[in-house]
Amino acid sequence: MAKTARETFRVPGGSRDVPVDLAALDPAGRPIGPKDKSAAEADMVDLDARIDARQEALYAESVGGGQRAVLLVLQGMDTSGKGGVIRHVAGMVNPQGLQIASFTAPTESERAHHFLWRIRKRVPVPGRIGVFDRSHYEDVLVVRVESLVPEQIWRARYEEINAFEAELTEQGVTVLKCMLHISPQEQAERLLARLEDPSKHWKYNPRDVDARARWHDYQAAYAEALRRCDTDDAPWYVVPSDRKWYRNWVIATLLAETLEELDPQFPAGDFDIATERARIVESVIT
Amino acid sequence: MAKTARETFRVPGGSRDVPVDLAALDPAGRPIGPKDKSAAEADMVDLDARIDARQEALYAESVGGGQRAVLLVLQGMDTSGKGGVIRHVAGMVNPQGLQIASFTAPTESERAHHFLWRIRKRVPVPGRIGVFDRSHYEDVLVVRVESLVPEQIWRARYEEINAFEAELTEQGVTVLKCMLHISPQEQAERLLARLEDPSKHWKYNPRDVDARARWHDYQAAYAEALRRCDTDDAPWYVVPSDRKWYRNWVIATLLAETLEELDPQFPAGDFDIATERARIVESVIT
Repeated sequence: MAKTARETFRVPGGSRDVPVDLAALDPAGRPIGPKDKSAAEADMVDLDARIDARQEALYAESVGGGQRAVLLVLQGMDTSGKGGVIRHVAGMVNPQGLQIASFTAPTESERAHHFLWRIRKRVPVPGRIGVFDRSHYEDVLVVRVESLVPEQIWRARYEEINAFEAELTEQGVTVLKCMLHISPQEQAERLLARLEDPSKHWKYNPRDVDARARWHDYQAAYAEALRRCDTDDAPWYVVPSDRKWYRNWVIATLLAETLEELDPQFPAGDFDIATERARIVESVIT
Repeated sequence: MAKTARETFRVPGGSRDVPVDLAALDPAGRPIGPKDKSAAEADMVDLDARIDARQEALYAESVGGGQRAVLLVLQGMDTSGKGGVIRHVAGMVNPQGLQIASFTAPTESERAHHFLWRIRKRVPVPGRIGVFDRSHYEDVLVVRVESLVPEQIWRARYEEINAFEAELTEQGVTVLKCMLHISPQEQAERLLARLEDPSKHWKYNPRDVDARARWHDYQAAYAEALRRCDTDDAPWYVVPSDRKWYRNWVIATLLAETLEELDPQFPAGDFDIATERARIVESVIT
């Protein structure tokens, strides 16, 4: 049997003591699934139907009192495609069942609180698929690379994150975390493409080039976050993202597999069908 | 030139002194646009592109400091298709640019506040297309029909709503309000269909049949809300909704026309393109 996406893209390791070697993972790799864009597009139609059916059941389940939800966490360097995943993968889902949260630099008020304070407020409610566009991982990524807090503070956060995500699991939120893995060459091309197109200038920020200069520091910070915070309850997946269509296919597949394992169920009605049918038939409005 | 959807479906009247006669408006009418479902589906592809392009520009405009947003208000009897519009019309929009709020019966805490308190919290932020699935109009609809507050209270609300919507206009939020107009016969069929399909039981609520028994009271309440709260800044549209595909086509067209009139613009970058290009080209990561 073919390997699932969850088996294929789970961050390698299996031991928290072995460093994650991101450089050994090919950002242009296609180990399973479609070999070209048109095959991926055909697959996406099926994935849409798979995701849609389970999402509706998950939503319905919550109307019947169910507590389960899903949280898809997206992290990646600038231009890695977090926005594209929201458009093309989250865009498959009925928006009624979707809850998107984008985390930019924290405000002064947010910085005055614990780093998880603003995150907790955006955890998806029951029945929803939540998407975090950046997340609490920024607090061990940019915060670490830019030394925004002392090392002893950010170093303690890995365990705080694990405790937080265990809490989410316990309350019924299934967490899946995707690192959108791109090569520095691909990033340069995408940044240049933004400069070429005036309708993309709003996405261009000169500071992204400053962050790019610290590429290896960021990769090291990612590698440590992946190693310390990959758990069976809240696994990390490394998604080859140099090809946009493959990235979308992988994440849609991870989401479909996750929803299928949850197997949400439409709740039974707490009414008598024959009685209700009679009430409707008798209620003739003239 | 063909009439626009905004001209065609604007609630008839032009005078606040003349009652709105909903019974004279055909819920199965198709005064403009596609004559069948397959023609509508072809149109929807174009509408998707029209909406998508403007939505992205609206979002981008807000990144550049723009304050404009759009608010689509959906009201209608049970089964009229508010959920279907969210799935099929709001589902066209990049979810990043969407902000959906569903207003069910207010909680005790919400009831302790002014009726607009919970509404104001959900007004779309700049750059977003907001969708209200039910809205502040419930406070002059169900509240009136079920006598949940004294008449002098709900009667004062029409002017409070107009003042609130004028405020929205002033702060840059373009409001369009759609009443999904269905016939009582169509409602009976849809309620029966929900009973027939166990995967739709979660949508069935016996109280919907109680509300159905007060059909004419609800129509009268709608007619008065449409008459008193139809303004040039926040117009009411009556959308023939007995055919789902036509309902979706009308609302997508109203949204496209509204966005095209707004004509949002991509903001110019505040950086020097040549400088940035050189910085990227020079930042070779090995």
